[in-house]
Formats: sequence, structure tokens, C-alpha cells
Amino acid sequence: MSLSKKKLQKPEEKCTLQEILGVIGGKWSMSIIYALFTGKKRFSELERIIPNINTRMLVKELKNMEANGIVVREVFATVPPTVEYTLTTKGEKLEPIINELYKWGVEYVG
Amino acid sequence: MSLSKKKLQKPEEKCTLQEILGVIGGKWSMSIIYALFTGKKRFSELERIIPNINTRMLVKELKNMEANGIVVREVFATVPPTVEYTLTTKGEKLEPIINELYKWGVEYVG
Repeated sequence: MSLSKKKLQKPEEKCTLQEILGVIGGKWSMSIIYALFTGKKRFSELERIIPNINTRMLVKELKNMEANGIVVREVFATVPPTVEYTLTTKGEKLEPIINELYKWGVEYVG
Repeated sequence: MSLSKKKLQKPEEKCTLQEILGVIGGKWSMSIIYALFTGKKRFSELERIIPNINTRMLVKELKNMEANGIVVREVFATVPPTVEYTLTTKGEKLEPIINELYKWGVEYVG
């Protein structure tokens, strides 16, 4: 009885949903991930593609996403240096989910 | 040329992803939606089921979710009054998406 009640409540799943939001719930994270579905992008490209983001916020979100293993950052020794971001497998696996979420948004959020 | 470039950038889609996060990206929103997939819940039940949430935050998130058409709030004239929350169709449609996101989290977030 006590076990089935505990199972019903699934407290560990609630924790995980919050951990997940900690990884991809940043204001711009999904927009950045979405932009990277079509392939790696330079910092300057991301800045241009994502509307209304400023440089400081983009740096911050990308650092957070790199730390969480969603993107890989590569620096090339060009003059000036080129910085490119690519999705990891972990990030790529979000594609169908974010696409579905986007479809939901188009239908219900407007 | 100019049109295809605009299409590639899809600025309107980025905006929508941020609008979507405005609706379901609150720290507790997904946990509350997840709890309501199994059927309507009283306020006190939600408070008990969702770990680490406090009353003030639960009130705030539920108000936001009601304003966004994710949940419906019903008050019954019992003594003391009973308040129940149910997902709307808009909220229910998130079930497969949140389930997939949760699976992703189990595999990649831990």
C-alpha cells in the first residue's frame, strides 16, 4: 500500500523534469538548439539568426549548453579566430521533441 | 534570393519557441502538467505530489497556467471549499511531448 502510493507519486520523475528544464529551459536554449538542427553555426551566424538575443545572453546560454553537453564549441585559428558550435548527440536527440513542441505551439499558442 | 534567405532564418519560428517557453517553461509547469496527466487533482494533492514546491509558487504557476489555457480551475462549495485543477485539451496535447522529453532526460540528463 505504502509502496504503490509512492509509485503513484513518482517523486523522482518530477525532480528529473526540473533537471531537464535546467538544461534546456533557458529563455533562448531551444531557439539555439533549433538553429543548430540544420548544422553547425558560427557565433556570428547564431547572433544573426536568433532574433532579439544580445551578445552577452548568447555567450551565456552557449556556455551553459556546452557545460551541459548539448553543444560542442570549436575554435579555429583564423584571423580573426572563428568559433563554431555543433550539437552533440544529446542535443540532436531533442530534434523530434522540439519539432513536436513547436507544432503544438503553432496550433495552441498561435 | 532575399526570400529564400528569410525562409532559412525562419525568425517567426524562433519567436514562437520563446512564446512556448513563456507558457510551459516555468520552473514547475511541466511537473504540474505531468501530475495532471493522470487526471484532475486538488490543490492539496498537487502540493503533496510535487516535491520541493511551496504553496506560493504552486499558486503562482497554476494562475499562470490557467491564464494560458493549460489548466481549468474549478471551485466546489464544500466546507472548506475544494479547488480542483484539470488539464484542458491544449494541456493534454503536451502528454506525448513531455513523455518524450522525460525519456530524453532519463537517458541523457541522468
